[in-house]
Amino acid sequence: MNKDTICAPATATGGALGIIRISGPQAIPVADELFYAANGRKLASQTGGNLTFGTIHSSDGETIDEVVISLFRAPHSYTGEDCVEISCHGSSYIINKVLEELVDSGCRMAQAGEFTKRAFLNGKMDLSQAEAVADLIASTNKATHDIAMSQLRGHFSSELKSLRYQLLHLTSLLELELDFSDHEDLEFADRTELLEVAESIDSHISQLAQTFETGQAFKQGIPVAIVGKTNVGKSTLLNKLVNDDRAIVSDIHGTTRDTIEEIVEINGAQFRFIDTAGLRETDDQVEQIGIERTKQAIKQSRIVIWLLDQRPSWSEIDEMDELSKGKRTIYVHNKIDLIDLNKFFPYIVPLSVISAKKGEGIDNLKRRIYEEAQMAGLTANASDVIVTNARHYEALTRAHENLQRVLDGLNANLSGDLIAEDLRLVLADLGEITGGTITSQETLNNVFAHFCVGK
Amino acid sequence: MNKDTICAPATATGGALGIIRISGPQAIPVADELFYAANGRKLASQTGGNLTFGTIHSSDGETIDEVVISLFRAPHSYTGEDCVEISCHGSSYIINKVLEELVDSGCRMAQAGEFTKRAFLNGKMDLSQAEAVADLIASTNKATHDIAMSQLRGHFSSELKSLRYQLLHLTSLLELELDFSDHEDLEFADRTELLEVAESIDSHISQLAQTFETGQAFKQGIPVAIVGKTNVGKSTLLNKLVNDDRAIVSDIHGTTRDTIEEIVEINGAQFRFIDTAGLRETDDQVEQIGIERTKQAIKQSRIVIWLLDQRPSWSEIDEMDELSKGKRTIYVHNKIDLIDLNKFFPYIVPLSVISAKKGEGIDNLKRRIYEEAQMAGLTANASDVIVTNARHYEALTRAHENLQRVLDGLNANLSGDLIAEDLRLVLADLGEITGGTITSQETLNNVFAHFCVGK
Repeated sequence: MNKDTICAPATATGGALGIIRISGPQAIPVADELFYAANGRKLASQTGGNLTFGTIHSSDGETIDEVVISLFRAPHSYTGEDCVEISCHGSSYIINKVLEELVDSGCRMAQAGEFTKRAFLNGKMDLSQAEAVADLIASTNKATHDIAMSQLRGHFSSELKSLRYQLLHLTSLLELELDFSDHEDLEFADRTELLEVAESIDSHISQLAQTFETGQAFKQGIPVAIVGKTNVGKSTLLNKLVNDDRAIVSDIHGTTRDTIEEIVEINGAQFRFIDTAGLRETDDQVEQIGIERTKQAIKQSRIVIWLLDQRPSWSEIDEMDELSKGKRTIYVHNKIDLIDLNKFFPYIVPLSVISAKKGEGIDNLKRRIYEEAQMAGLTANASDVIVTNARHYEALTRAHENLQRVLDGLNANLSGDLIAEDLRLVLADLGEITGGTITSQETLNNVFAHFCVGK
Repeated sequence: MNKDTICAPATATGGALGIIRISGPQAIPVADELFYAANGRKLASQTGGNLTFGTIHSSDGETIDEVVISLFRAPHSYTGEDCVEISCHGSSYIINKVLEELVDSGCRMAQAGEFTKRAFLNGKMDLSQAEAVADLIASTNKATHDIAMSQLRGHFSSELKSLRYQLLHLTSLLELELDFSDHEDLEFADRTELLEVAESIDSHISQLAQTFETGQAFKQGIPVAIVGKTNVGKSTLLNKLVNDDRAIVSDIHGTTRDTIEEIVEINGAQFRFIDTAGLRETDDQVEQIGIERTKQAIKQSRIVIWLLDQRPSWSEIDEMDELSKGKRTIYVHNKIDLIDLNKFFPYIVPLSVISAKKGEGIDNLKRRIYEEAQMAGLTANASDVIVTNARHYEALTRAHENLQRVLDGLNANLSGDLIAEDLRLVLADLGEITGGTITSQETLNNVFAHFCVGK
């Protein structure tokens, strides 16, 4: 139980309203000290889940603001403790003044994420759900929102619970085997079942770990390289994709001077388009263009757009195929307003045709890009469990490694005692994700340092 | 009565929490469409003043967020209508998505200040109180906060009410005079009383109008010119004043290239220090320094700081006195760490002594500056009525002008009918400040255009 009472602003400055949050054993008495309810009733005498209008006063009796107070009584609050939320006018002076008075009355300014940390410590949510809260607040598009919401609603937690259940089942099978270890003839059958269960768990854990790459693509935008010769219209296409899209999140300037990156949202998914400006230094032979830069751009992408404005030679086509091997590739013929289409077919199929300049075919191209992302497994349904957190990924990877030792042990017919030890490690690895009473202070600090103040 | 239901975000983006406000006859049914209460109860079946936890869903059934809903039933709400406030996570995606769903369900995005406009139209506050709401939200220091709060709490309104009462009393005296107009001997006595009452009202109105200058000083900072010869330490002093103060609001760059302005808060009042960089081009004779620029800086200031680093001649002292005539002047001796104080006294008294470089004497100087502001009537108590709004100032000025005609009429023994007509104008002028059913749409639009969205 936390003995001190914390307070913090829960809203950004500059709005019509500002919310100040107080949580802890003294939340209600402290609020009662500053608050005069219009109905004359003390908060201490009221039940939780109520709104009360009144004024907040400074210790010298001056009216700071007219406010509405939301009262939450433990355990029916976000943190699980007594909570008071003061809804005041969004003036920076008022918010600072109220916080000052709260601190003078014995509250402590909350650290980043401390309200959610208390919610976790009080058993209101597990650690992966707590982390989802920060992701949810940071979400700016449907894809990142849906993953965070799914995680907050406990979809990831329940998959982990199911894995934990299977691991415990495996352990009990192992114990059964130990009980019957005198009967040598029974062992073979048991180990087969044990192996099957262990492999199924491992495959599930590996699948989850593999979603991390998708999760990263969601967070940072699915990388799409736009490559092609100089003057083929790469920048025009990029500008068109960006300008058509009213939901631009930000401009990212590449770490290399020669790469421009832009985030564009298509169907609620974020794409990070990489314009390979390096190709500008080339003349007209594909093999002579800055191959290294192109390779780099392609390497970091999941989807490659080859932009063409004239019929490529067969050797060029081979070159392009070679360069974009292993990536989902879209060949796009630009400048269809200027060039006779018949000259292109059937060299490269399927071919998207656009006029970047006139904006023709852009919507089709976007649809095509989204479909390629879908086929690459880079889009998600709201219910999909996607690992976006590096801490979770590392724990899953460790669980997979420890489970490999379990499998090796089973295959090598090692004693059940030894295998059970590795199984406990796997359980601990998965347990770290959702956290528990044994979660280290260091882990907690790392997790909640990423939060904003007031949450 | 407003038939449509409006919605808007009431908090700035970027915080842990975001509040979305809905007001109007459909507020509760619309919220019920998107909201699934954890307790399974519809908002429509609940009393006002309650908090309900649950989830907000999109029309296609996806969970947008876990939220807490505050329910206010007409007339017990800010607007006087049914109101719902959705407290969600502060993600821009979530806030936009919820607003989108609300608009799809028939709400309209609120215009700036529209919630407060409805509060005014529904009789929850008068127009000057509504304007105080915007001032309160914009307040960044104690002085501007206290004035706005006083106005919101109705102190200005009640002064106007009292003036209105006195004006009605004057009208009734005038009517009494008309009733007895046959008795010529009675008139003289009546007119004396009428004049006294009218003069008292006019003096009150003039006093209120005069506070406008103070109000402006509060809003923009009380202007203090720092003048003195080159190398005397003006910029060092300004930097010291600014850096010592953690509550800097903003840097204001003067419209002329030669003036630097900085806002510094002292005892909760804002001061706008004007560093007259123009004086830099001078040599060591006061009369040779850029007199015009100094004059300009002094002209726009209320307080003048003359900074000295050596004993001025008598002619220099006369020159300084002449230049800062009519302003509150503080003579400050800088560089006391370097120069023997005895050489200065008793030339200029009272003299503040500082070392801008070493930070010595700065606190005393600040206290002195604040005291000068107090003596100039530029500081206020929380209960003082200060006019900060140009619209109010104009109405008061018109009322004063029309009241002058009343006084002239009384003095010229004009007929009571004519005087009563001017009295009605004065009543209308004052009535414009608090507004009423006859307030023009144009006035309302002007007033509420200054508001932020969501208030």
